[in-house]
Amino acid sequence: MLKAIQNLGCSSSGWLLWKTRTSTSTSTSTSGGFSFISVSTRPFSYSSSSSSSSTRAARTNNCSFSACKTPSFRRFRARSESSPDAASASSSSPVALQSSSSGNVRKISFCQWCGGPTKHEIPSGEEKMRAICTVCGKIAYQNPKMVVGCLIEHDNKVLLCKRKIQPSYGLWTLPAGYMEIGESAAEGAIRETWEEANAEVEVLSPFAQLDIPLIGQTYIIFLAKLKKPQFSPGPESSECQLFALNDIPFNSLAFSSMFVTLNLYIEDVKAGKPKFHYGTIKKRPGTSPSDIHAFTLDYHLQS
Amino acid sequence: MLKAIQNLGCSSSGWLLWKTRTSTSTSTSTSGGFSFISVSTRPFSYSSSSSSSSTRAARTNNCSFSACKTPSFRRFRARSESSPDAASASSSSPVALQSSSSGNVRKISFCQWCGGPTKHEIPSGEEKMRAICTVCGKIAYQNPKMVVGCLIEHDNKVLLCKRKIQPSYGLWTLPAGYMEIGESAAEGAIRETWEEANAEVEVLSPFAQLDIPLIGQTYIIFLAKLKKPQFSPGPESSECQLFALNDIPFNSLAFSSMFVTLNLYIEDVKAGKPKFHYGTIKKRPGTSPSDIHAFTLDYHLQS
Repeated sequence: MLKAIQNLGCSSSGWLLWKTRTSTSTSTSTSGGFSFISVSTRPFSYSSSSSSSSTRAARTNNCSFSACKTPSFRRFRARSESSPDAASASSSSPVALQSSSSGNVRKISFCQWCGGPTKHEIPSGEEKMRAICTVCGKIAYQNPKMVVGCLIEHDNKVLLCKRKIQPSYGLWTLPAGYMEIGESAAEGAIRETWEEANAEVEVLSPFAQLDIPLIGQTYIIFLAKLKKPQFSPGPESSECQLFALNDIPFNSLAFSSMFVTLNLYIEDVKAGKPKFHYGTIKKRPGTSPSDIHAFTLDYHLQS
Repeated sequence: MLKAIQNLGCSSSGWLLWKTRTSTSTSTSTSGGFSFISVSTRPFSYSSSSSSSSTRAARTNNCSFSACKTPSFRRFRARSESSPDAASASSSSPVALQSSSSGNVRKISFCQWCGGPTKHEIPSGEEKMRAICTVCGKIAYQNPKMVVGCLIEHDNKVLLCKRKIQPSYGLWTLPAGYMEIGESAAEGAIRETWEEANAEVEVLSPFAQLDIPLIGQTYIIFLAKLKKPQFSPGPESSECQLFALNDIPFNSLAFSSMFVTLNLYIEDVKAGKPKFHYGTIKKRPGTSPSDIHAFTLDYHLQS
């Protein structure tokens, strides 16, 4: 079975290149040690047995980021990888700050409903460690958070915001933030765009869902358009700017999710048809969690 | 502007019918008081001004559930509407149990990190009421939860599970449950399918994202197939069964989300092409939250 580990690089023009290593066999579609595929082949199932049907392969292996003309592979310096608006929406959340894939359940020391001390056990009938109140018995479940945002198309350009807050201060991002209770994902994406870019937008279609299990986040990105050709930096942005696709600052992006989203978008624009993309961003073992380019994009599925 | 309020009904064959009321004008595509559209036209933007561009309309108004041949509209009896596996994954979660769109922040009385009492205020720079610890100052953010599941295709049939737990005991659902920290949505959907139907599946493509703002949930459903033609009820199911599309028990489904998902699937099968669907399930004002058919499907977007 092919074991693909993809190191993400970028040519000077901003196009992507995926470097693929094979553990047991030589990958197809390689060129000089590089392969233009974006999907690892770990079985996408609950069991540990290997599996890779032709159907799944056909649906997952057709993303190439193949616009890279020259294999000028290089790595970027490490940068902070965290939530897009940790300072405003969930900075104190244990989910937002967790650094391991199992969550930080042990940091939950008290019941938020009755104030009783918690114990940390696997409840009967479950498989995961939970914080259970020793007084009222309630369980403090933790679940991943959704980050919702807009990829705004305007005159063949896309709107980016330069962050005026940590993490990733001074780096560029699509307007995005945590989805709130009481709103839909699209409403949240529109709200975040208003807050970060003072831009009124209309959502056109869903574009991407990118899970990041390590930090308990799922990015939901919509294609959108400006209702009025007006925008300006909100409180969390120092600058908002429309970028032509060739001018997107790929070496100054704030988050892996934005890096992937913008490249998928460019790929779709070149193909002439927007799709919906699903994928999982997994940090490569042994790399710094702050390096936004040291990841694999697993299980890239399209609709 | 058309204000569509859709009452969901079902003919004896299980096909859907949407009843649409107009507030200021007569809807197009109506027939005897019924309209085969599935999208309300409330502006999909952050501002309160009306907007409905041709682009958005074109992308949103093409879902019809039009397979309904006879307008035998009828309402179903009210049933419980809640999380698909509240008993096992998040039954004690304030999000899972909340009944208002603003969340139940006032039920958070203590800080889960230091045990201090909380106050309920809108933090500086924010717009929503939060529970803030009066001792350590941390904010207990609440965010919507993702419910992940599989729509499993096998021999032109789909796999459903009859629930052996509350809510919706004895009613049919796709295998689904809360996404856990540390897993991707697809991994979670596969896990839930294993837990509820003892079925090993392979995810084929993303199929639907359905937000339910009222209860702070987002359903993420994948198309999947059985890796082996074997399944049996897990601990939370009393029965698992493959249903031909004409035999799906639409009058005995557990959740609005499943009702919508299965109908969108049938629509796509008839059209010969699976799509990705995004939409918001909103309860109709004045109806019981336990009535899974009393809702509008807003902002149906497809990719």
